[in-house]
Amino acid sequence: MIAATRKSFGSDNHAGTHPAVMRAIVEANAGDVIAYGADPWTEQAVSDLARLTGAAGGVYLVLNGSGANVMGLGLLLGRHEAVICAESAHINTDECGAAERILGTKLLTVPAPSGKLTPELIGARLAGRGDEHFAQPAVVAVTQSTEFGTCYSLAELRAIKEFCAANGLRVFLDGARLANAAASLGCTLADLASTADVLSFGGTKNGAMGVEAVIVMRQADTASAPYLRKQHMQLSSKMRFLAAQFNALLADDLWLANATHANAMAARLANGLADITGVELMYPVQADAVFARLDPRHIAALQQRWTFSVWDEPSSVVRWMTAFDTQESDVDAFLSDIAATAGSVQV
Amino acid sequence: MIAATRKSFGSDNHAGTHPAVMRAIVEANAGDVIAYGADPWTEQAVSDLARLTGAAGGVYLVLNGSGANVMGLGLLLGRHEAVICAESAHINTDECGAAERILGTKLLTVPAPSGKLTPELIGARLAGRGDEHFAQPAVVAVTQSTEFGTCYSLAELRAIKEFCAANGLRVFLDGARLANAAASLGCTLADLASTADVLSFGGTKNGAMGVEAVIVMRQADTASAPYLRKQHMQLSSKMRFLAAQFNALLADDLWLANATHANAMAARLANGLADITGVELMYPVQADAVFARLDPRHIAALQQRWTFSVWDEPSSVVRWMTAFDTQESDVDAFLSDIAATAGSVQV
Amino acid sequence: MIAATRKSFGSDNHAGTHPAVMRAIVEANAGDVIAYGADPWTEQAVSDLARLTGAAGGVYLVLNGSGANVMGLGLLLGRHEAVICAESAHINTDECGAAERILGTKLLTVPAPSGKLTPELIGARLAGRGDEHFAQPAVVAVTQSTEFGTCYSLAELRAIKEFCAANGLRVFLDGARLANAAASLGCTLADLASTADVLSFGGTKNGAMGVEAVIVMRQADTASAPYLRKQHMQLSSKMRFLAAQFNALLADDLWLANATHANAMAARLANGLADITGVELMYPVQADAVFARLDPRHIAALQQRWTFSVWDEPSSVVRWMTAFDTQESDVDAFLSDIAATAGSVQV
Amino acid sequence: MIAATRKSFGSDNHAGTHPAVMRAIVEANAGDVIAYGADPWTEQAVSDLARLTGAAGGVYLVLNGSGANVMGLGLLLGRHEAVICAESAHINTDECGAAERILGTKLLTVPAPSGKLTPELIGARLAGRGDEHFAQPAVVAVTQSTEFGTCYSLAELRAIKEFCAANGLRVFLDGARLANAAASLGCTLADLASTADVLSFGGTKNGAMGVEAVIVMRQADTASAPYLRKQHMQLSSKMRFLAAQFNALLADDLWLANATHANAMAARLANGLADITGVELMYPVQADAVFARLDPRHIAALQQRWTFSVWDEPSSVVRWMTAFDTQESDVDAFLSDIAATAGSVQV
Repeated sequence: MIAATRKSFGSDNHAGTHPAVMRAIVEANAGDVIAYGADPWTEQAVSDLARLTGAAGGVYLVLNGSGANVMGLGLLLGRHEAVICAESAHINTDECGAAERILGTKLLTVPAPSGKLTPELIGARLAGRGDEHFAQPAVVAVTQSTEFGTCYSLAELRAIKEFCAANGLRVFLDGARLANAAASLGCTLADLASTADVLSFGGTKNGAMGVEAVIVMRQADTASAPYLRKQHMQLSSKMRFLAAQFNALLADDLWLANATHANAMAARLANGLADITGVELMYPVQADAVFARLDPRHIAALQQRWTFSVWDEPSSVVRWMTAFDTQESDVDAFLSDIAATAGSVQV
Repeated sequence: MIAATRKSFGSDNHAGTHPAVMRAIVEANAGDVIAYGADPWTEQAVSDLARLTGAAGGVYLVLNGSGANVMGLGLLLGRHEAVICAESAHINTDECGAAERILGTKLLTVPAPSGKLTPELIGARLAGRGDEHFAQPAVVAVTQSTEFGTCYSLAELRAIKEFCAANGLRVFLDGARLANAAASLGCTLADLASTADVLSFGGTKNGAMGVEAVIVMRQADTASAPYLRKQHMQLSSKMRFLAAQFNALLADDLWLANATHANAMAARLANGLADITGVELMYPVQADAVFARLDPRHIAALQQRWTFSVWDEPSSVVRWMTAFDTQESDVDAFLSDIAATAGSVQV
Repeated sequence: MIAATRKSFGSDNHAGTHPAVMRAIVEANAGDVIAYGADPWTEQAVSDLARLTGAAGGVYLVLNGSGANVMGLGLLLGRHEAVICAESAHINTDECGAAERILGTKLLTVPAPSGKLTPELIGARLAGRGDEHFAQPAVVAVTQSTEFGTCYSLAELRAIKEFCAANGLRVFLDGARLANAAASLGCTLADLASTADVLSFGGTKNGAMGVEAVIVMRQADTASAPYLRKQHMQLSSKMRFLAAQFNALLADDLWLANATHANAMAARLANGLADITGVELMYPVQADAVFARLDPRHIAALQQRWTFSVWDEPSSVVRWMTAFDTQESDVDAFLSDIAATAGSVQV
Repeated sequence: MIAATRKSFGSDNHAGTHPAVMRAIVEANAGDVIAYGADPWTEQAVSDLARLTGAAGGVYLVLNGSGANVMGLGLLLGRHEAVICAESAHINTDECGAAERILGTKLLTVPAPSGKLTPELIGARLAGRGDEHFAQPAVVAVTQSTEFGTCYSLAELRAIKEFCAANGLRVFLDGARLANAAASLGCTLADLASTADVLSFGGTKNGAMGVEAVIVMRQADTASAPYLRKQHMQLSSKMRFLAAQFNALLADDLWLANATHANAMAARLANGLADITGVELMYPVQADAVFARLDPRHIAALQQRWTFSVWDEPSSVVRWMTAFDTQESDVDAFLSDIAATAGSVQV
């Protein structure tokens, strides 16, 4: 960190753990329990998550987002089957080839504006079905909210689900930031879950210390789930400490409050940028991320004082993320510095 | 848990988190830091672990024991290479085939008395070297302390290392309970680490909430390590909370105190058993586990009141484990009940 | 080859191609046809093999025995599932770990006298079913005729099939030498096929140049078969030249004549050995292989003049194999030399 | 085949086996030899191919093109490494995801005009090197001649090799049609081989019945080769029948004559098309394939009488291939029908 006393706009995982989550972890440290999930904390988390999402196939707590994605995809894929996803999908760009190496699957990528697939984009990758020379598309992976801070509307997700159902495809939803999408759309987790066959629900970026859930909507898809979780090295022995995190996030809808706040801070940032010349927003700001293009010298100047990522060096695009604990004053100070920088540095 | 108020003898991972570890986790929740390990907690843990083990290749914090084993083996194995291990090795019996599925390697298993390999046992699995029809043995995996609660002596480990070096084999040491071995042998971590090429050092069973370290002894073996950790879904984003656990365990040698205590409790249990007829110890008790054979009806009666595992149903062998927080009074109460049970139930 | 003019007793794949098979290959070289199997030769072979075995799921010609085994197992295995097989199974000992590497499966091996599994031996490897820490046994792999030149009786195979059906297990039959088993038992291919879910039928060791068939008994198991064949690099472009080989073997039951002859030559060899002191038969001779123990110095002396394999150096056991083209005079000359050697070399 | 008596323009693998190759196969059927390649035919093929290509690392005969590609890439790739290739690469489009499933690698694809990579295109895929979140590009795969019937010049290949060497990348060359490239460029196999680290040399499309070679240029890259060949199910037991095919192709440079002839027939076809309105050539015709765009109704009409593939339905592009046995009269008859069709069917 350049400046530990300044809020990072680098990622929602630069934040720490929400105090209520931390309290729940500390409180779970009470005596002995059976390992690997046969404990009351896990039973509660699993049961609450199933209820909130309408999942009939089960809920599996795992250790991180890549683990959730690989396990979730693995539940839906045969050995010869492929995944259609956006080029910008986290599974394609940020998991060191885990899908290919751990599952042996092929990712059929699609350039997707704003990170969002559509039935048309999916349909364009269906060539070769039934031909033994081609890895067979079987799963469509969507990310909600997307890697670009945008959200599919429920109508868009339902159109994808309908198209997939009609075409013998299954839907996996990477929900590392699902909470932000629910907050943005004003919908329930069940609304979102109903558009997928298997999904992940991320705790880590929502204020947890480190936990994600793999949620299986149908009983028929869950037979191998416990085994894949273990085999994929995602089974925690002291599971209660994962479960306690979700229990805290679900209590009084803390998950929603956290996401709503983070989204609001991103919106505040975006709104403030509208007044600053020399900063161009790249995508609609619908979750907790702001993508902006500005002069490389302005980027360099700002990085002297603030923590954030250059998303694409050649096109001079940066990503600014908020989190559950970003304060209005953090945003305002950042905005003020952006304005001063974009103003003071002559291009 | 049958009885939440009674100490479990089921596993060292039935215990919670050591208070000092929990404090360290809470204290690490201080503001923002860069994700994925570029933070001062991780820097300290990695540097301390490297110093204590003499590792020149690097230290990689990971999420659980299976993850540590698979990543560690992966650093040493080519695609066509196999692992020689004891039949009782955790990688063979308890990881749902992760080594085969994630690494694609073959485990060449050896029935090993007390869970310990020897140069002779290893040598007997070397047939077929140089023959393209055989998966080529390249790594020997030892567990220290073993799955049966025994410890290799340093001399035994050095003999294996020497044999391996002379035969073009590498040594991976599964150290999920390495602390117990160091406590038992009265040696340093560096003594143990020097007998391996890559090893894991387990925090979870030693009082942590959930963290393990993969330790690479030589620089030449570490090039792919960061990538394999990510690809194997073992890279934590909020890494500081893993690192803080090790920082607490390493401070004032808490790791050693915890292991020494757990071992002492197992020894106390074993000593007490010596006076009870009808209970037969299966192995020397050199770490935190006691394996015993007793009448199946005694087992059933004890399981009404205590939590522990039947290790082998047909031979009527149970495993009783202690932990960092097992009290003398727990052991004594358990012993007293065992004595009463073995005495009261007529065989 | 030590002596090109002497018949090899080293393996049934030391033989060349049966003249009728070679003629069929030459005759198939007639103009252009669609690649990858849409040709009349392939249609005939596939249809004839389906008829002879009663397969409803399809027949897939592949390039070699390891390819047939891996593909056949792959049709029956989920990602978390394991294979129970004899320690001596070819998939365990002779395929360079292909099952582990290509399928990611775990082989649960059983020491099996004469290379033959039984329901009891299989049952003993079923521990851990339903426990997420264990790779789940899902397929039992039998080899018929076995790697030790023995044959399961039909009753034995049916008992295994029945046990497997009752226990939720599937049966894969490695039939690299299925013809020898049918000849030995005097049964049909359909009799044998009915005891498996998926099987291979070997052409190569039966007089072909190089072709095997993967035979899927039920339609429900065949959906991924064309894709796995391609993905496993077992799809031949000029498929007609594979198919023509089977067409020749199936015409006038050449496959049966070849196997019957090879078996008879092995029996002649075994019978002759009965009169030679110092040579101990290891297994009943029920196919085309004779395993014998004799003095190491006798082995060395014989290897000066004959080609054969030492199967197990420490126990001084050799394997002598016959083939479709082994002559009575070859056997008699070999026997005469064995007798002379075992007589002349004083132990 | 629509019409067995008419030459197929569908693929160079619709052709049968060159008579000289068939004769060599028949002649190799002479008595017994050791299996798996310890025979004089294989020794000759391997030694001749090594000499012709300048390979110091060894030559490995395999069963088909996908097998050659997967094995060749496998020799160069670590578990975390990725392959840069053209979108149109056979490994990406036609092998049912074998590279991902068998090697677990990620293909970083590049839209490449005419199917040819350049240093610039390769360089654009190097982002993320050294970042653990990204599969690390390690190998560049080129196809020569390409899937579009074009050839890299030697200068182009050398520029790629130089760029790769300077950037820590290795080169794999998919030479399923390497002969056509050598014929087209008038260069030696050694010229081509020198631009790669590992390459394949295809026999099947050059007149063989079914054989390819994996050629390893440097000794340092070959240690795992025999094992990967076996593990990838590419080791033939009656190897002499593979080797004999190459021996025939190499004798009197038959491979070059076959390729030169096929190329000449494609050039004749392309030249003839120049006079036909309504047929647009898509790429320079530099090997044995002609890609053309014509009216969909013309395509449909021609497919009534001729065998060929529609390459891209939406853009109405077809692929016409020649082979070693395409006759001038075949080309002229086809041209005459194309002209009549394109003339007679009013658009």
